[in-house]
Amino acid sequence: MDLRAYLAERLPAVEHALEAALPKPGACPEPLASAMRHLIFPGGKRLRPAFALAAAEAVGAPWERALPVAVAVELVHTYSLIHDDLPCMDDDDERRGRPTVHVAWGEACAVLAGDALQALAFEVLLAAPGAPAPAVRDAARELARAAGAGGLVGGQVDDLHFDRACADTGVIESVHGRKTAALFAFASSNGARLAGADAGRVEQLRDFGQRIGIAFQLADDALDADSDDACSYVRAVGAAATQARADALLADALRALDGFGESAEPLRALAGGAVRRST
Amino acid sequence: MDLRAYLAERLPAVEHALEAALPKPGACPEPLASAMRHLIFPGGKRLRPAFALAAAEAVGAPWERALPVAVAVELVHTYSLIHDDLPCMDDDDERRGRPTVHVAWGEACAVLAGDALQALAFEVLLAAPGAPAPAVRDAARELARAAGAGGLVGGQVDDLHFDRACADTGVIESVHGRKTAALFAFASSNGARLAGADAGRVEQLRDFGQRIGIAFQLADDALDADSDDACSYVRAVGAAATQARADALLADALRALDGFGESAEPLRALAGGAVRRST
Repeated sequence: MDLRAYLAERLPAVEHALEAALPKPGACPEPLASAMRHLIFPGGKRLRPAFALAAAEAVGAPWERALPVAVAVELVHTYSLIHDDLPCMDDDDERRGRPTVHVAWGEACAVLAGDALQALAFEVLLAAPGAPAPAVRDAARELARAAGAGGLVGGQVDDLHFDRACADTGVIESVHGRKTAALFAFASSNGARLAGADAGRVEQLRDFGQRIGIAFQLADDALDADSDDACSYVRAVGAAATQARADALLADALRALDGFGESAEPLRALAGGAVRRST
Repeated sequence: MDLRAYLAERLPAVEHALEAALPKPGACPEPLASAMRHLIFPGGKRLRPAFALAAAEAVGAPWERALPVAVAVELVHTYSLIHDDLPCMDDDDERRGRPTVHVAWGEACAVLAGDALQALAFEVLLAAPGAPAPAVRDAARELARAAGAGGLVGGQVDDLHFDRACADTGVIESVHGRKTAALFAFASSNGARLAGADAGRVEQLRDFGQRIGIAFQLADDALDADSDDACSYVRAVGAAATQARADALLADALRALDGFGESAEPLRALAGGAVRRST
C-alpha cells in the first residue's frame, strides 16, 4: 500500500487538532503559549499519532475517532522532549535544526511549558467527543500509566542513570520499553479503544505497540551507529545485529495482529516503515 | 465545631491513600521513587485534601468518596512545589525545614519526580472506585484544566514574569486565582462531584473554592508582611487591608454555600480556619 498517500490524507487533521488544542492568544500568559507551540509546529513525523489513527481503522472504525488519542500522545511526547533537552538532563541546544525550548524561551518557561503540555494531553483526551465515558476514562488512565513513573518518566530516569559501559541488551530494551514503547502501546491500543474496540483487540494492539516501540528505537539506534554517542546496544552487538533484533520484534508485533484482516494493512505498513528505514 | 478533631479523624486516611498511590519498591527506578516521596512525607497541612473531603460531606455523602480527589490534588500541589523550587525558578534550597527535592536528589530527578507526580495524580483519580465513569471523566478533565496553562502553570508563569513593582492588586488576585485557587476550586467541587453531587452543587462549590483559594493566599501574604520578600499586594495596601480583603472573600465564599445546611459546617469551619489564622 502507499503509506505516503495514506498519511498525506490523514495527518493534516492531526495538525488541525493540535492547533485547536493549544491555548488561544490570551488564554494563557504569552511566553508560555509560544513555548508550548515551539516544538509542536513544525513538528516531527507524527509517528505516534499515525499509529493511533491506523489502529482505529484496523478495528473497522473511522480514523477520526482516534484523533483525541493522536493529539494526546503527541503532546506527551513533545513535553518529554522539552524536559529531556533541559541543561540538567541531556543539555541539548538544538532539535530538528532549531533552538530547543529552553534556549529560545528560558529554562523556567521550558519546564513549565512541558508541565502544561502534559496537563493539556489529559484535557484533550478527556474531552473526546462521542466516545463512551468508560472508554475515555480507561484511555486516560492508561495514558497516565504510560507517561508516569512506571513508563516514560521511569525510562528516562534509568536512561540518565544506568552505566552505559555495563548495560546489557536486556537492560537497554527495558529502558526503550518504557521511554519509547509505552507511548506507542498507548497510541495503538487506545486509538482502537476510543473507536469502540473490544478488550481483546485493545490488548492485542497494546502488545503490538509495545513491540513496535522497542523495534523503532533499536532501528533508530542502528542508524546512529557511526555517531559519537552511539547507543551501547549498538556498541555491544553492532549495527547489523541491532537491526536484526528490531526486525525480529517487528515480526512478533505483526503476529500480535493475528485475526486482524485487511483493515489492519495501514497499521502493518506503518509498523514496517517505522522499523525498516533506509539507511 | 472542633476542626482539629474533625481533621484528626479524617486525615490519616489521606496519608494512607497517598502511601498506597506512590510507587512500590521495584515499580520504578530507585532515585525516582525516593524523590517522589520526599515532599509528600512528611507533608504539609493537607489543606486541599481536607477541602475535598469536607465538600463530599457538605452534599451529604461519606467523606471517603472524595479520597481520590484528595490524593490527586495533593499530588499536583506537591509536583508544583518541586518545580517551583528549582534553580531556574525560585531557587529554594529548603522547604518545611528540609532540603528541597533538587538539593536532595539532583535537578534532573526533581524535574522528573514532578512530572511523574502529575501523571500519578491523573492515574489515581481515574481509578476512583465506585464512582460513575462520567463523573470520574469530568473530574479528571477539570483537574487537567486547573493544573494547566490556564490555571496553575499559567499562574506560575505570570508570577515569575510580572513586574512586582507595578503589579496592582487586581493582577495579583488573578495570579493567586490561578496559581493557588484553581486547585482549591477543583478539590471542593470535585470532592462533591465524585460523591454524587448534582451540577448545581458542583458549580456552587467551585465558586466557593475559587474565592477561598485567593483568600487563603492573601491571608498567607498578610502573615508574611514583615519578611523581606513581602508580596507586592501587602506592600501596596498594607497587611491589615490585605487581611480585610481576605475576610471579604471569605464572606463571599460562605455566601456561595447558600442552601447548604448543617452538613456544610465542616467546610465552613475549614474555610474560616484557612483564612483567619492567628498571626
